[in-house]
Amino acid sequence: MDILRHFRFEDVGRRVEDLETPVPVIDIDAVERNLTRWQARCDKAGFANRPHIKTHKLVPLALAQMELGARGITVQKLGEAEVMADAGITDILLTFNVVGRHKLERLAALMQRTEIKVVADNPDVLEGLAHAAALAGRDLTVLVECDTGAARNGVQSPQAALVLAQAIDATPGLSFGGLMTLPKNGARGQMAAFLEEAQTGLGKTGLPPATVSTGGTPDMWSDEGLAAVTEYRSGTYIYNDRMQMALGSAAPDDCALSVLATVVSTPTENRAMIDAGSKALTSDLVGLEGYGEVRSLSGALVYGLSEEHGFLDTSKLNSKPKVGDLLRVTPNHVCPAVNLFDKVVFVRGDEVLGAVRVDARGLVT
Amino acid sequence: MDILRHFRFEDVGRRVEDLETPVPVIDIDAVERNLTRWQARCDKAGFANRPHIKTHKLVPLALAQMELGARGITVQKLGEAEVMADAGITDILLTFNVVGRHKLERLAALMQRTEIKVVADNPDVLEGLAHAAALAGRDLTVLVECDTGAARNGVQSPQAALVLAQAIDATPGLSFGGLMTLPKNGARGQMAAFLEEAQTGLGKTGLPPATVSTGGTPDMWSDEGLAAVTEYRSGTYIYNDRMQMALGSAAPDDCALSVLATVVSTPTENRAMIDAGSKALTSDLVGLEGYGEVRSLSGALVYGLSEEHGFLDTSKLNSKPKVGDLLRVTPNHVCPAVNLFDKVVFVRGDEVLGAVRVDARGLVT
Repeated sequence: MDILRHFRFEDVGRRVEDLETPVPVIDIDAVERNLTRWQARCDKAGFANRPHIKTHKLVPLALAQMELGARGITVQKLGEAEVMADAGITDILLTFNVVGRHKLERLAALMQRTEIKVVADNPDVLEGLAHAAALAGRDLTVLVECDTGAARNGVQSPQAALVLAQAIDATPGLSFGGLMTLPKNGARGQMAAFLEEAQTGLGKTGLPPATVSTGGTPDMWSDEGLAAVTEYRSGTYIYNDRMQMALGSAAPDDCALSVLATVVSTPTENRAMIDAGSKALTSDLVGLEGYGEVRSLSGALVYGLSEEHGFLDTSKLNSKPKVGDLLRVTPNHVCPAVNLFDKVVFVRGDEVLGAVRVDARGLVT
Repeated sequence: MDILRHFRFEDVGRRVEDLETPVPVIDIDAVERNLTRWQARCDKAGFANRPHIKTHKLVPLALAQMELGARGITVQKLGEAEVMADAGITDILLTFNVVGRHKLERLAALMQRTEIKVVADNPDVLEGLAHAAALAGRDLTVLVECDTGAARNGVQSPQAALVLAQAIDATPGLSFGGLMTLPKNGARGQMAAFLEEAQTGLGKTGLPPATVSTGGTPDMWSDEGLAAVTEYRSGTYIYNDRMQMALGSAAPDDCALSVLATVVSTPTENRAMIDAGSKALTSDLVGLEGYGEVRSLSGALVYGLSEEHGFLDTSKLNSKPKVGDLLRVTPNHVCPAVNLFDKVVFVRGDEVLGAVRVDARGLVT
């Protein structure tokens, strides 16, 4: 596949050393490897790939994922769905309860130009969704979100899933589409027990779930507990990050994105200051030590952050970085880091391919 | 002062309950109180007010600060300086080492239309600044950044400050402008000792500092150690946040900004899920418990976050929030939270005044 044909790059020069910092730098070859390997795994396992675009937020990469074989995409916000719909992607799953008048009107507008599906975990949400369906003049497919251990959104038991599925089925304008969950990391067995019990109950009441959708990059390579699953949502796998390395789902070479930063000061022997702070890396710790690491400096840690400053621990380095040096920082959590930038730069090895706008950046509603 | 005359609002309706969430909601009266009180304190104490615009990132509020009596503004990035220069503000202090060819060219361009001053804490930075001055064809005023305890950027001793001041003075195109520091919170005595020793040394060598600039909202109301200070940089005081309340520099009514969020799920008796996650509140903990609090719900804590979900602890509430309820969340750290939004909404009491674009959002370079 020629992934590049989906891109229209802005020229920012050919050399990494000429880039203004901080800026995310993304290796297109690593991206292509990550996408291809995961699609092959989905194909082999026999479930659909429905990548979450919240990680890259880029139309060209969503189009590449579709071309590689994705069934459709996952989004977390209506704004993300709107951007992807504008690009011609029509099979969209929105995995967030849609609540509020403006949002229901936007959902109705999306229903008129896409095959958007949504989720719900409570009857109040259904009432709004029925209103959106009425506005759109067509049926809306709704999956029941299940809390299978992550303790976030979701119905709390297989019985509650059954009750909500029946409520969807009984609501004019809504159509029950199946089950959706984001399991707790490392707890696929718990997820499978929940989903299988719900599925059995649904089958007995004449509402077998057409889709059983799970997700999560950390456990994506594990086979455990996927028997009932028909589709998989993964986002972070396209770029990966320190969190995924720590969780064992990515190797260093799978980390396609780093934040290019400049050393602006070396106030002490053991501290170098870089121009990437929390406005570039986020303050997400996700259970790790530090806020990022520099692989080319033996994994030197960004041990502190303020908004525009990163504090790099150079105590273990024989050769200390100097003012003006460019460093590539692997962030802890790549998705919210991408959200901080208007533009990202793609490279192939040492060659800069160009910059692109982050199409779905900052779309919080 | 009529602070509103600086604004051109986008109409988003008149009622808070009609706003789409999540969105920052800012009380204009609290802003005006915060600005007025601090300017009065600076006037009385006899030092200049040079507010840091990194908190609000808004042209209209920077203009209001100037009108109220600020000497000039502080920015952390060239992009912020460019936006404010476009708005006609010319007295700008950039408190971040400028490193790299593109940035030096941008600095030279700014020098041709503003009275921008910069800082440096090492000789490599001076070399670049001299290049910018040559490009601009005029002298550049450079303050020496001093690390007086915060362990971030800055020369490490009064002696080092003297050496760097002499280097600035000896560099064609550069002019020594004084000392700048961001002290450690609660360590003004340490700061004063450093600055006074540096000042004495500078006086003896014929380089008395024209400006001695300190900053920081947490200690802004303390009189300790300010004898040598000629100007004060504060940013957060305009909105305030949980961090400032915890540090004692703000009362609850001084918190002008909250993030309006919608309850989208109440999966268990003790957990409500809101549509403001780390993409709305940031994951900054700044030493606090939780990521935000809801004052109208007895300070109920946002105890967890994912990108689009906030986890609200409702265990202590007699009256539990319901799906569809709007809540105002006071963030831990308001500056990076503002950076996440394209637009913010201003209100006066319950009346929505309108929305404005966050002019200097996301300007990381």
